[in-house]
Amino acid sequence: MAQKKVCLVIGAGAGIGGNVAKKFAAEGYHAVLCRRSDQEGLDKLVNDIEAAGGSASGMLLNAVKDDAIENLVEGVEEKIGPIDTVLFNLGAQIGNRALHVTSHKQFELGWRMATFGLFRLAKSVIPHMLERGHGTILVTSATAAMRGNAGQHSHAAAMGGRRMLCQTLNAEYASKGIHVAHIVVDGAVDAPDTLGKMLGPEMYQKLRETRGMEHDGLLLPEKIAETYYHIAQQHRSVWTHELDLRSFSDVAWWNHELKIG
Amino acid sequence: MAQKKVCLVIGAGAGIGGNVAKKFAAEGYHAVLCRRSDQEGLDKLVNDIEAAGGSASGMLLNAVKDDAIENLVEGVEEKIGPIDTVLFNLGAQIGNRALHVTSHKQFELGWRMATFGLFRLAKSVIPHMLERGHGTILVTSATAAMRGNAGQHSHAAAMGGRRMLCQTLNAEYASKGIHVAHIVVDGAVDAPDTLGKMLGPEMYQKLRETRGMEHDGLLLPEKIAETYYHIAQQHRSVWTHELDLRSFSDVAWWNHELKIG
Amino acid sequence: MAQKKVCLVIGAGAGIGGNVAKKFAAEGYHAVLCRRSDQEGLDKLVNDIEAAGGSASGMLLNAVKDDAIENLVEGVEEKIGPIDTVLFNLGAQIGNRALHVTSHKQFELGWRMATFGLFRLAKSVIPHMLERGHGTILVTSATAAMRGNAGQHSHAAAMGGRRMLCQTLNAEYASKGIHVAHIVVDGAVDAPDTLGKMLGPEMYQKLRETRGMEHDGLLLPEKIAETYYHIAQQHRSVWTHELDLRSFSDVAWWNHELKIG
Amino acid sequence: MAQKKVCLVIGAGAGIGGNVAKKFAAEGYHAVLCRRSDQEGLDKLVNDIEAAGGSASGMLLNAVKDDAIENLVEGVEEKIGPIDTVLFNLGAQIGNRALHVTSHKQFELGWRMATFGLFRLAKSVIPHMLERGHGTILVTSATAAMRGNAGQHSHAAAMGGRRMLCQTLNAEYASKGIHVAHIVVDGAVDAPDTLGKMLGPEMYQKLRETRGMEHDGLLLPEKIAETYYHIAQQHRSVWTHELDLRSFSDVAWWNHELKIG
Repeated sequence: MAQKKVCLVIGAGAGIGGNVAKKFAAEGYHAVLCRRSDQEGLDKLVNDIEAAGGSASGMLLNAVKDDAIENLVEGVEEKIGPIDTVLFNLGAQIGNRALHVTSHKQFELGWRMATFGLFRLAKSVIPHMLERGHGTILVTSATAAMRGNAGQHSHAAAMGGRRMLCQTLNAEYASKGIHVAHIVVDGAVDAPDTLGKMLGPEMYQKLRETRGMEHDGLLLPEKIAETYYHIAQQHRSVWTHELDLRSFSDVAWWNHELKIG
Repeated sequence: MAQKKVCLVIGAGAGIGGNVAKKFAAEGYHAVLCRRSDQEGLDKLVNDIEAAGGSASGMLLNAVKDDAIENLVEGVEEKIGPIDTVLFNLGAQIGNRALHVTSHKQFELGWRMATFGLFRLAKSVIPHMLERGHGTILVTSATAAMRGNAGQHSHAAAMGGRRMLCQTLNAEYASKGIHVAHIVVDGAVDAPDTLGKMLGPEMYQKLRETRGMEHDGLLLPEKIAETYYHIAQQHRSVWTHELDLRSFSDVAWWNHELKIG
Repeated sequence: MAQKKVCLVIGAGAGIGGNVAKKFAAEGYHAVLCRRSDQEGLDKLVNDIEAAGGSASGMLLNAVKDDAIENLVEGVEEKIGPIDTVLFNLGAQIGNRALHVTSHKQFELGWRMATFGLFRLAKSVIPHMLERGHGTILVTSATAAMRGNAGQHSHAAAMGGRRMLCQTLNAEYASKGIHVAHIVVDGAVDAPDTLGKMLGPEMYQKLRETRGMEHDGLLLPEKIAETYYHIAQQHRSVWTHELDLRSFSDVAWWNHELKIG
Repeated sequence: MAQKKVCLVIGAGAGIGGNVAKKFAAEGYHAVLCRRSDQEGLDKLVNDIEAAGGSASGMLLNAVKDDAIENLVEGVEEKIGPIDTVLFNLGAQIGNRALHVTSHKQFELGWRMATFGLFRLAKSVIPHMLERGHGTILVTSATAAMRGNAGQHSHAAAMGGRRMLCQTLNAEYASKGIHVAHIVVDGAVDAPDTLGKMLGPEMYQKLRETRGMEHDGLLLPEKIAETYYHIAQQHRSVWTHELDLRSFSDVAWWNHELKIG
């Protein structure tokens, strides 16, 4: 049996990460799902993929630990298969916090996860991709990469640095066959493991019922995964480096609502 | 037989326009192809679609003429079917011309085709789309919408105005079900009717052989069409408003090439 | 007596235009003030400058008329003096109007004043500046040049096109000594001739008293003029092409207000 | 004698930092100059300011050390005077380095100096400024904050993060009287302590003679200082948050040179 192409997902909860894994597995990839905690939740994602006839494996990973990302990449390449696509899906959202209650530690952790994590991943995985002459690095980003609002000191600095890093990687490696895509998710995702935990079960359910279900006002992660997959399949003569995703019923980050007559 | 959804293409040469028509027809739409001249070329595009089992019609259209776009939209809606998707694919590229050789007339024509044309289309087609609660407006754009180089006075002013118009339309109509996508084609497209005519047959063939075929350095329009189609199919909870497309071997507009060590 | 350098102001009401004229005159320029109507208001501006010891002249000008801008430039160069600095201060604001109540005529007029007007000015004045090896073109711009909100179809398309035109002019002429600056006024200006007329005397006075006087929430045009003057005096090794101006108490266009804890 | 307002310069070499100190001192501020090394160079800057009748003090500072910035701010506020304006002038430029020769340590140091350093400064100085209801934070930035080229992984990530941080600080504190300005220096500065050391004395002198002296192709730091001073004096109704500075003879980062006819 020919070895399957691997889609490695770093940050695989039940939102974007898990759904991207599911989609790529459904299309014939082997999905490797990594998340920091919740072995049970991870097992469920892997089992669901396998129950649907796909191929997947999972592991817990504390990405900010020394060598964690590096060892992961080497281990997957050696024992599972060639990483064709990797999704870097780690966020650094800590809610809106005024400067005086944003600690040095929080600010550093934001950078360590969201910016430095991608740098370490790139250094680890790109040499393998270069040998094969191709590879795709998908990066889930957020509005805070485009502009910084009050209270987003840690998140915006991490995301803004990461956006520039995506550009430097793209500038250095696109012509060598490595496709880096910076995907700006401009709105709240209907994701139980992140939004759900942030809000608590009751508020989350309420938000889903009001803004979500009726109006599609939350981004549906299984629909997001369709676009991620499309980006990873683009012919090399027509690569997208940056795109935005938002619900039709939401206001784009650059717009303010006005009274119009 | 149920009526097919219509994909109307304004600016349907053998490049992006024709290939988008082909793709949507292959997926079950009726394609309506409009271009300013070359009945023969138009007939060939329509015939090719029909030969492949698709459904299409074509008509010559001078888009800058009074009522031309308006009558086209009404005619299609009445006689052919509901416009589900419209591609506005008119450019205003006149090559790089210094200010002193860019005439008032050229500057105005650029605006009239590329900016005012989209405004007129939006005013004509959006009321129909609003009645149905959905619709997609795809706009082929260019790097000149993002920044103006020397010699691009007419083109950049037209494209930059159009980009803002796409944003105002999106801001006003997204929540009513109308998806406006501004697609920045950042590079030369392998299109015989535009690039081919600009360069002449010999230089075009040479460019195709050197930059194009070996290196995929020209954007292939049938590959571009895949992404256009994907955008038009995005679920309304995850719409893309803006994305870039370029060949992997090309330099992004925001990058300069540097010597690196 | 040596001839004074001329600062030509196209769009000289009692707001930015008139105050820029005043500032340049106070610094030794001869100010030429043009506006579409209100001879009395124009005379008052000229008289105020002269009463303060400055030098100025004024004329009514319908900028969208054929040859109006062209004749103005030639007339000033011939009869008054060399145009060192020109401020293009024509706006195209028509308030927030939904698409269906924005007419073809309004959309075209916006472009004709704000975009085409600058193109015509550039074609007229740049040859004179090139002969002298230097010159400054200041362009008052608005947030709508950066992003389009609902209801701004005409204004944003005109301003977005103009922004790109500023870039093409800068790219073509900076190295020849012509400084083009695109100044994004991101907020309401305390200007009786524009904001005042839009709101009517009562509402305007009320706005000045609440948002303006107490909080400096309206941009004060005599303070804006300080920065315009600074930009025009920058040494050619450190030119600014684009900057924003807004009241400290206002929210930047790229920001949304958030609840922060 | 009334206490002078303090202008604190973090990163005070003989380029932008030293010249900004000189300018503010000439206008009546007490300048505090900090740099990492070269006591002699620092003394010369302070002496020059004093010889010109200004008031200044200097100290060596390793900004990345724990508590260094924090202690500096407290010490100045206690012993010297109220910090009216602070210039954060630390760069993180390490030249163009391919990814595989950019170490984890270099990448982290870039962030620690350029991004985290500003965060620490903001946390230290803003409480003092809030008490007084006003203050100015000037941040020298670079093109790499706007887009990432190949080989700029460390620099661009640090600068891009910092740009977003400037926006979050501005969003949170502008309305409380604190003016944060992000100044994009888009080109090489004629600075012996940075450019000079990077190139070595011979190449630096040669560059000055060819690109610099004849063509003003290097940004002159004493001219840059004029604009920094202007920004710090803007009336609060007309604050600039972001502007670019480049030599008239240079190409803007968003432009590519084209052949035009």
